[in-house]
Amino acid sequence: MKTHVAPARIDYDGKQIHSLWAYRTFGVQGDSIVAFQGGCEIPFDNMVDLEDVRRQSRIASPLMLHFIAEHFDLDLEKAVLRQRLLAAIVRDELGGEVRRDGDDLFLGTGKLSISIATLTPVSSKIHFGINIEREMNVDVETRGLKDLGVDAADLARRVLAQYAAQIDGILDARTRVRGVP
Amino acid sequence: MKTHVAPARIDYDGKQIHSLWAYRTFGVQGDSIVAFQGGCEIPFDNMVDLEDVRRQSRIASPLMLHFIAEHFDLDLEKAVLRQRLLAAIVRDELGGEVRRDGDDLFLGTGKLSISIATLTPVSSKIHFGINIEREMNVDVETRGLKDLGVDAADLARRVLAQYAAQIDGILDARTRVRGVP
Amino acid sequence: MKTHVAPARIDYDGKQIHSLWAYRTFGVQGDSIVAFQGGCEIPFDNMVDLEDVRRQSRIASPLMLHFIAEHFDLDLEKAVLRQRLLAAIVRDELGGEVRRDGDDLFLGTGKLSISIATLTPVSSKIHFGINIEREMNVDVETRGLKDLGVDAADLARRVLAQYAAQIDGILDARTRVRGVP
Amino acid sequence: MKTHVAPARIDYDGKQIHSLWAYRTFGVQGDSIVAFQGGCEIPFDNMVDLEDVRRQSRIASPLMLHFIAEHFDLDLEKAVLRQRLLAAIVRDELGGEVRRDGDDLFLGTGKLSISIATLTPVSSKIHFGINIEREMNVDVETRGLKDLGVDAADLARRVLAQYAAQIDGILDARTRVRGVP
Amino acid sequence: MKTHVAPARIDYDGKQIHSLWAYRTFGVQGDSIVAFQGGCEIPFDNMVDLEDVRRQSRIASPLMLHFIAEHFDLDLEKAVLRQRLLAAIVRDELGGEVRRDGDDLFLGTGKLSISIATLTPVSSKIHFGINIEREMNVDVETRGLKDLGVDAADLARRVLAQYAAQIDGILDARTRVRGVP
Amino acid sequence: MKTHVAPARIDYDGKQIHSLWAYRTFGVQGDSIVAFQGGCEIPFDNMVDLEDVRRQSRIASPLMLHFIAEHFDLDLEKAVLRQRLLAAIVRDELGGEVRRDGDDLFLGTGKLSISIATLTPVSSKIHFGINIEREMNVDVETRGLKDLGVDAADLARRVLAQYAAQIDGILDARTRVRGVP
Repeated sequence: MKTHVAPARIDYDGKQIHSLWAYRTFGVQGDSIVAFQGGCEIPFDNMVDLEDVRRQSRIASPLMLHFIAEHFDLDLEKAVLRQRLLAAIVRDELGGEVRRDGDDLFLGTGKLSISIATLTPVSSKIHFGINIEREMNVDVETRGLKDLGVDAADLARRVLAQYAAQIDGILDARTRVRGVP
Repeated sequence: MKTHVAPARIDYDGKQIHSLWAYRTFGVQGDSIVAFQGGCEIPFDNMVDLEDVRRQSRIASPLMLHFIAEHFDLDLEKAVLRQRLLAAIVRDELGGEVRRDGDDLFLGTGKLSISIATLTPVSSKIHFGINIEREMNVDVETRGLKDLGVDAADLARRVLAQYAAQIDGILDARTRVRGVP
Repeated sequence: MKTHVAPARIDYDGKQIHSLWAYRTFGVQGDSIVAFQGGCEIPFDNMVDLEDVRRQSRIASPLMLHFIAEHFDLDLEKAVLRQRLLAAIVRDELGGEVRRDGDDLFLGTGKLSISIATLTPVSSKIHFGINIEREMNVDVETRGLKDLGVDAADLARRVLAQYAAQIDGILDARTRVRGVP
Repeated sequence: MKTHVAPARIDYDGKQIHSLWAYRTFGVQGDSIVAFQGGCEIPFDNMVDLEDVRRQSRIASPLMLHFIAEHFDLDLEKAVLRQRLLAAIVRDELGGEVRRDGDDLFLGTGKLSISIATLTPVSSKIHFGINIEREMNVDVETRGLKDLGVDAADLARRVLAQYAAQIDGILDARTRVRGVP
Repeated sequence: MKTHVAPARIDYDGKQIHSLWAYRTFGVQGDSIVAFQGGCEIPFDNMVDLEDVRRQSRIASPLMLHFIAEHFDLDLEKAVLRQRLLAAIVRDELGGEVRRDGDDLFLGTGKLSISIATLTPVSSKIHFGINIEREMNVDVETRGLKDLGVDAADLARRVLAQYAAQIDGILDARTRVRGVP
Repeated sequence: MKTHVAPARIDYDGKQIHSLWAYRTFGVQGDSIVAFQGGCEIPFDNMVDLEDVRRQSRIASPLMLHFIAEHFDLDLEKAVLRQRLLAAIVRDELGGEVRRDGDDLFLGTGKLSISIATLTPVSSKIHFGINIEREMNVDVETRGLKDLGVDAADLARRVLAQYAAQIDGILDARTRVRGVP
């Protein structure tokens, strides 16, 4: 499980969830999680969650901390399980009053994050984005890392380390149990 | 995802992790999670984690809140991912200062829980046990629900409801995304 | 397993077999089977069975009863097994002299149905269409529900109920057997 | 898909569903279906369906036509789908008033058959048994091939040929369709 | 496992690795391996190995012996294992001083071959190409069958026969072992 | 992929192919390959290949170089593919006139090796044994490393390094290709 912090701003537009983006962009090969900061504006054609398309939800933010994970298997249920684990890790790193509901994080009634998990032809991908600044001009009440007084770069490093360690721990757990009748 | 609370005390001895235990014992069929209270004493022959066998760890507790989950697929990595999700749910329900490290929960330096995930010939199983009373006569420092002032029966109900809801939410998330290139 | 009867005529042109059509069109989410009535005219570019493309078979009918099933897994052999089961269910609901040969239904020497099963990036899909009126201008001899005196709307309801019940019965059977040596 | 008719009487006692029985007994290697005639008496320890164990159902018959299929994969849902297909094939070969309900065949209110599908460590197995003579001393009303005037040896040959042809047809269908978006 | 030798020259341009090429081009259906002779010039848009794209490697040869294998499953690791086996078979048929390094064959310091394995929406595919004449105008030192004095048509026949026999042998080995604890 | 050379003689009796043997015996956890030297005498009850049981073949050797590989997945076809790759690696390390036929190595008409691949409840396992001294008292003509003048300890080190490198190379190849239509 490799980790990488992008050195410069990248605006998320839905293309970063395509297969092998980390390899094509940074030369990071294999199962990986990459963090970067940038805006978020997803055209309808790039939306992956058809619930958003049906509701015509605008997904946008002036500045987010983004995580992109890629795992080279083709099991969407497993991808969603890993997405929930990533959300739990971010919650634990933020701590305090932050709550997780499925793949969403909340502070009080304000939404902190957006996330999606899907399949490419050769891998499964997760996008998890946390507001740094609050989103305006959207229908839902939002909160951001600035409301929490959390430094995005520091959070990125801690989440990358935890996700890589926990994924490795899962592979480790898989290789020391015997079967039962 | 079915949930069930066992009406009477059951001592965990490692047989509850065998396949179809919920169906044979309670008539609960299909993917399920069952909660019960009872002691914990696992003979070496029933131990599933060979790390415990190699270390000759004694696994015992006078009184625990136990959860047994069964999912009818044969993917051990997925079983461990669900085990981590269950640990995150218990942590969130306990809240406060309780920390999750992989599949273990801690309060300060004291260990609150034990857990294992493995395969049967027809399903995957998870055992997750939380001390109600502190364990004595064991090598590690422990804590229990009594230290936290948490009612075991109430916690059981909340964890069962959350686990079932989150597993259903994962299946739901799997069925509304399109693939990407 | 959800079932849905489309309220209005839909002509089948091969796009209904794309992923998440039931969700995008009717909001029906998850494993599902949808029935609708309408013509059938599949452009070569939308043909899925390359045997038809190689033979340059025209696939067309003035009026059919169509079924579209979607299951969120990626196993084409399993999809074809479910397609055969669907064909057997339609045969049993039609009864009498109707014969099943693989995924095709016949009355005497006349062909009653067309069918295909394939994969999308996130699911497997089945199309099963039964002539209501006889097809003309095609190379093969055909028969339709009118020859059988069967009401299409009534047949649709019975097939949806049977398919959903039998798929649920299969999941049920999977969760009460132990493994053998 | 290989087919084999056992030359002599074999009483079914639940061991014939163990892995590689066709290879160990007849040298029939690979995916196969074997037919034989004999009694049926399954000790509780050999019962695979835990519903029967829970109900303490006695499973016995003086004379049955048995089919044992083995497929070398480990997908229980797929095994149950093939079991349903086998039941549909037997129904179609018997024809007339015989009805299929899941994996059971009925003539009027009388039960004609028993069946189970399960996993071994290396394969999936199906047992499908049809009464030749009526069972007595059992709780359920039964019928047999003698009530239908059907010759068991002839039925065996036709079912073996159809099952092998249809399984081969499924593999064929899997290898000529393109994917869709 | 079917084998086919293309009767006329075909230049490899990356489209031959798309799904069902053998069926669409030659009517060869099911798991198969096809051999043909022709040039090799792969436009960047058709390149499958992103390492080549990143390095802007030109992949070209005036004349090669090409093999295209297709297997109807969706496991990329398995496809790469079969690709390595194919490379080992070609090495063994060439014999002598030819060395295999992963999926590449070498004669001394000169590269003899190129290869890729990938997934289509319904199958896995392997391309393996061996220089007949040496490539010029490329960055790496190359060798060809002419350096070895090997007849391409004869090699094609031997490799097809061996690959088909060994793949069949693997399926055979899968169906005569029992599981172990 | 971990490698380990056992420090002392171990006689192979069929128990070394059970799950987690490397972890229980040497603390080697995860996908691994272990080499050791010792005799070979497999009681019929421990034989895995039912062809040997049917033929009542005695499998024995006074001294062999043994390899035991374990991979934590449950795909027997993949296990057999890896077994063939291991045989090809040993052939390439021995070089010269040694031939591979499936999973067997030969020198002239003499058999050099025995091998099996099978499943445990949690992993797949390969045993590959090469005679050091010739076997006597067996029905088949054999050869050993002494006939080749090859040092067993040196061969062990080279095979372990190659197998680990090639398995890692396969995982690497899996993570840099895009899918094709």
